[in-house]
Amino acid sequence: MANPPLTATLLVVCPDRPGIVAAVSRFVFEGGGNIIHADQHTDPEEGVFLQRVEWEMEGFSHDREETIAAFRPIAEAFEMQWRIRFSDETARIAVMVSREGHCMYDLLARRKMGEVRAEIPIVISNHPDLGEGAEQFGAEFRHLPVTADSKPAQERAVLDLLDRHDIDLVVLARYMQILTPDFVSRFPRRIVNIHHSFLPAFAGARPYHKAYERGVKIIGATAHYVTDRLDEGPIIDQDVVRASHRDTVADLIAKGRDLEKVVLARAVLLHLEHRVLVYGNKTVVFD
Amino acid sequence: MANPPLTATLLVVCPDRPGIVAAVSRFVFEGGGNIIHADQHTDPEEGVFLQRVEWEMEGFSHDREETIAAFRPIAEAFEMQWRIRFSDETARIAVMVSREGHCMYDLLARRKMGEVRAEIPIVISNHPDLGEGAEQFGAEFRHLPVTADSKPAQERAVLDLLDRHDIDLVVLARYMQILTPDFVSRFPRRIVNIHHSFLPAFAGARPYHKAYERGVKIIGATAHYVTDRLDEGPIIDQDVVRASHRDTVADLIAKGRDLEKVVLARAVLLHLEHRVLVYGNKTVVFD
Amino acid sequence: MANPPLTATLLVVCPDRPGIVAAVSRFVFEGGGNIIHADQHTDPEEGVFLQRVEWEMEGFSHDREETIAAFRPIAEAFEMQWRIRFSDETARIAVMVSREGHCMYDLLARRKMGEVRAEIPIVISNHPDLGEGAEQFGAEFRHLPVTADSKPAQERAVLDLLDRHDIDLVVLARYMQILTPDFVSRFPRRIVNIHHSFLPAFAGARPYHKAYERGVKIIGATAHYVTDRLDEGPIIDQDVVRASHRDTVADLIAKGRDLEKVVLARAVLLHLEHRVLVYGNKTVVFD
Amino acid sequence: MANPPLTATLLVVCPDRPGIVAAVSRFVFEGGGNIIHADQHTDPEEGVFLQRVEWEMEGFSHDREETIAAFRPIAEAFEMQWRIRFSDETARIAVMVSREGHCMYDLLARRKMGEVRAEIPIVISNHPDLGEGAEQFGAEFRHLPVTADSKPAQERAVLDLLDRHDIDLVVLARYMQILTPDFVSRFPRRIVNIHHSFLPAFAGARPYHKAYERGVKIIGATAHYVTDRLDEGPIIDQDVVRASHRDTVADLIAKGRDLEKVVLARAVLLHLEHRVLVYGNKTVVFD
Repeated sequence: MANPPLTATLLVVCPDRPGIVAAVSRFVFEGGGNIIHADQHTDPEEGVFLQRVEWEMEGFSHDREETIAAFRPIAEAFEMQWRIRFSDETARIAVMVSREGHCMYDLLARRKMGEVRAEIPIVISNHPDLGEGAEQFGAEFRHLPVTADSKPAQERAVLDLLDRHDIDLVVLARYMQILTPDFVSRFPRRIVNIHHSFLPAFAGARPYHKAYERGVKIIGATAHYVTDRLDEGPIIDQDVVRASHRDTVADLIAKGRDLEKVVLARAVLLHLEHRVLVYGNKTVVFD
Repeated sequence: MANPPLTATLLVVCPDRPGIVAAVSRFVFEGGGNIIHADQHTDPEEGVFLQRVEWEMEGFSHDREETIAAFRPIAEAFEMQWRIRFSDETARIAVMVSREGHCMYDLLARRKMGEVRAEIPIVISNHPDLGEGAEQFGAEFRHLPVTADSKPAQERAVLDLLDRHDIDLVVLARYMQILTPDFVSRFPRRIVNIHHSFLPAFAGARPYHKAYERGVKIIGATAHYVTDRLDEGPIIDQDVVRASHRDTVADLIAKGRDLEKVVLARAVLLHLEHRVLVYGNKTVVFD
Repeated sequence: MANPPLTATLLVVCPDRPGIVAAVSRFVFEGGGNIIHADQHTDPEEGVFLQRVEWEMEGFSHDREETIAAFRPIAEAFEMQWRIRFSDETARIAVMVSREGHCMYDLLARRKMGEVRAEIPIVISNHPDLGEGAEQFGAEFRHLPVTADSKPAQERAVLDLLDRHDIDLVVLARYMQILTPDFVSRFPRRIVNIHHSFLPAFAGARPYHKAYERGVKIIGATAHYVTDRLDEGPIIDQDVVRASHRDTVADLIAKGRDLEKVVLARAVLLHLEHRVLVYGNKTVVFD
Repeated sequence: MANPPLTATLLVVCPDRPGIVAAVSRFVFEGGGNIIHADQHTDPEEGVFLQRVEWEMEGFSHDREETIAAFRPIAEAFEMQWRIRFSDETARIAVMVSREGHCMYDLLARRKMGEVRAEIPIVISNHPDLGEGAEQFGAEFRHLPVTADSKPAQERAVLDLLDRHDIDLVVLARYMQILTPDFVSRFPRRIVNIHHSFLPAFAGARPYHKAYERGVKIIGATAHYVTDRLDEGPIIDQDVVRASHRDTVADLIAKGRDLEKVVLARAVLLHLEHRVLVYGNKTVVFD
């Protein structure tokens, strides 16, 4: 794939009040920037305004540092939480897995083909099974087993690896361990998990078994940011597929795998393209 | 629509053991019946076998009574729960509603166009709002308000109406009252409800508000048989539609209405065509 | 449903150049308008910019006429095709049908319940079958049969009815006649048709029969604006449902009906809310 | 994944007449076979009956050869086209690709994880790009470029490779060349192609560009058997995803990739499990 032109992406969350859109538009317009994506959202109940604006840096009158400096007064005037990202910043992803490899293979192949524009230097697992698969794609594989007793030490070892690899985003690609609040607090809104059900249905363990027992006619998968509350973090994307009485638990698991890998990859791509904004426990996805 | 040819439909639930399919096939074959639909399902865990066979009565060597009599020895040999229904038996439906009319209008229009081959002689509501709509389709409308105190008396009045109208199937088309176990026990597996969420997510009241608060990216609707346990009866059909951060609660409600009426109608049609078999708390849908 | 607050909706199509968003935002901002929906789209290949902005009139410093007058200089500066609509303007719809009633019943019931905020004073058909159904909802029903020879005269009679009823939007709710270019030219982008296939697959007659013969595993429905080229007008919305070898043509038709009425209603609502912009042969749908 | 128990699968296509189901059921029943899947279909217009029956060989009174011999008289009596396959027969697949790797990676990873129970000894391409990817999964990679002039020779070289690797199934995993009728005739109903549109819409080249130009609101992918007529072979599976005016051609291509790999894999699995029966130009899929 050809390299796309360099762009800047401004993300804004702030109290809703008149004039924000006009101020932001004027900022880009007066710098001579060519806007290639602009979307905004207002939550009237919460009084929150959210915006994503992406423009080409070619022809823009500020360089990167100046852009950030020039926007600061506007941000302060409107009490914005904000950031500006440039499209050639390459995120570094750590993939965490247990025994099921479909999401890991999918992410690694997407990276290799250039669909995922990021580095995946390391795969971490509490089981050894997927080592060969990770390594064949050139990723380092680290097997860090975990028990109830060893969890604090194991998580410290994981965090150490994340630090050493300068990781921006942790992707739980069917990692079947619950992370401690302490771990989660180190990567706020930077841990994406795939849960193998249509949340909030069937949170927790063995969702396909529960779906089978309940006799649902549709199953799903949910990608979300990890928070302290299990399977309750902000949802990024979901998808579903039909099931029937003919489907055994094994059939549901097989159908679910195809959902899981597609939904997780979509969520990772949305995150990497700075298309997901979180407020409260919800997301705004500017796609 | 032209009248379809007269058919017999045999429904079987029994312990799974070898020879059932062979015995049933031979029964229809030896009578000279032309099978137009045959489907079966085995649940190996529960050891349950379920079957639906539909054949044309034209050219079949038994009349209705003889058919039933001739099948009885086979049924007894395999310990079957079974019934045989003939396609010209017209079910009688009571529709129960509160204030939302979309499901009621949809069912009444389908009946008028011949999509639903059944009678709908009566619509019962705890509110007066939909009286004109029901009556314009020629259905009797009965307004039976209900309070916590009056519920037993109101349910007796409803049951009395159902008796007098010789009702086979009660369709809760957005009837926002919980039926007592006593009422439910009078129509086992003959009360179909539409719940305005993707069960088991968001059981109970105000599911669209809960979906909005949770920030889900897909909403759903579920048609199920009513049992003593609220929103936990056997699921007949479900469907979903995408939502986004742009959707207000009102938008979710509007999208949901389109799901609700289609899913409820599908479930009613499946029931009327004897395509739904219940075992345990699940359904087998032979579509 | 409660009356929503009065809003103005500005729709813009113009050559893409910098500063449009800033100018429009400033216009609403400086008038004190509270924006409740804003979305825009740029087609970089065609160099086209499209925008929809909706704001509350309460607190806005201009009345209706002043609003339009005040915006004119901006529109001229950017060479805009534009219009401003106010949310209390009630559109008048004529529904045209042949023999299939599901879309007509659905639209009439939605209007009665307030889902469709418009008048439907008249239903026109080339067959008499649906007269009672239209009239029970209080719409005038006009039976205007048509043959190859009588088509010019019949269309003149239809146009005369549309004029007399001051119709804004013509909805072809399974009207199985092809309108002449002359007729179409009288209601540019104001005739919405539902085609019973997933266009461009199975354009023309008998799409369900063609779908059956081709053995497709999914069928669809398409709502589009009518142009001179049969089934080739700008697509507003589409939807699909799974099919299988078990589905007869009659089953496909039955499944399709549920799609058709939902897709057509969604398209009509999008049109009425001024959410559909047409450019070239495509639509931008700001939902 | 654990090895499943050994099963026999009988596939039948024959003229529809009474007694087939009874005869087949009796055959399995009298041999003491435990049926784990049985499904049948009748096409009344064509007068065709199709059936799939799968039973466990443990406890069945015939061994493999006897099973086939014992069934032959039944098959002859009913003029069946038939075959019996045993679940431990491992198919050998050749994957053919051009430059796009997503389907190839997906199939190779599924095989490695045991989702696809088959061998994939070889990947053949008219471009060199995917060689490393194929080889990292242990498949042989053969680069056989093709021009209009060299096509006959290239196809002979491909056929020679397929022979030498004893290939049962050819999977065109985004192989962007049209196979000659001569080639196709060598693998009747044993070449599966993924077409990147919702057939019959957008057959031929560049379907995503055509979809973009037409402004469709949903895009799709189709897996089908290859016949002499381009993109017109029997459809095995299809799926779709929503699109909008926001999607560029590149976005449609990206969305389509996720469809393509899932739909192709489903079709390959259905084929490998002997769940697809072809008659006329259609499939019956016993899932």
